[in-house]
Amino acid sequence: MTDTQINIASDDPVLETDFAVEMVRQMRAIDSYGTYDKWPVEQILAPFVLTKEQKREIPVVGDPDEIVMSRVKAFYNAIAALIEKECGLMAVPSINLTHEGFGRALITVGKLVVMDKTLRDVHRFSYPTLSKMKDEADKILSVALEIVGEYPKAAGL
Amino acid sequence: MTDTQINIASDDPVLETDFAVEMVRQMRAIDSYGTYDKWPVEQILAPFVLTKEQKREIPVVGDPDEIVMSRVKAFYNAIAALIEKECGLMAVPSINLTHEGFGRALITVGKLVVMDKTLRDVHRFSYPTLSKMKDEADKILSVALEIVGEYPKAAGL
Repeated sequence: MTDTQINIASDDPVLETDFAVEMVRQMRAIDSYGTYDKWPVEQILAPFVLTKEQKREIPVVGDPDEIVMSRVKAFYNAIAALIEKECGLMAVPSINLTHEGFGRALITVGKLVVMDKTLRDVHRFSYPTLSKMKDEADKILSVALEIVGEYPKAAGL
Repeated sequence: MTDTQINIASDDPVLETDFAVEMVRQMRAIDSYGTYDKWPVEQILAPFVLTKEQKREIPVVGDPDEIVMSRVKAFYNAIAALIEKECGLMAVPSINLTHEGFGRALITVGKLVVMDKTLRDVHRFSYPTLSKMKDEADKILSVALEIVGEYPKAAGL
């Protein structure tokens, strides 16, 4: 996608949520050269939100580059940070990607696997809207907290 | 190390153990060109056993290549296979290596993390003897089975 098209409105209420705030923090953490310093948050999160048409322009088969991989990691890091915030226990993401863009993303809390996802087509990793992206994160978060609640001792509570 | 020096005796009793048999199986699985077909088992496992002197010859800082990485994976795959055999539940290894040779190796059973190891200096991954290598595997195996025993429901029993 080009830097010029941003599919997030600057007044999108989702930008105020814990999830979006954490996503921006994670993106800034991998921005070694301070490129994002003067960017508005909607521009920093823009690569995660692609319209159907934009997504269609990306070849189906493709090797994800370092930038795309670091974005996927930022997403799961953000979710891990939210899990940690909610349950007070360290949540560790572990992302395993082959260069073909397939892989597995895990988040562990103590001895518990609270998220286990198969990754596919990582080079096209995106959501149609910021709100849909937050929905996915919320879903993962609530399942993770449920698992911690079910096995508190294994989680380390 | 050169292919000529093998630090495992062909009559080493450890070669008869489940662990060594599984290790050979894992090594054959990654041998796409059938190079090992006519090799004796001690030659197939030879790269895992380096004397102090041989290990010292490897630079302290180095990037592990694909072959070394696949060996590390074979080791944890073998342990996962043994865990599976013992507890009857699927054990899934997940190895996360940066190109600098640092990383994390996990084995999960159901929702349980039964092994969680930080990897360092992967390009020098080796043991002084085959017996010491088996000891390490046995230790991981017994801790893993203990964790499964402690949290059977999370493991899926």
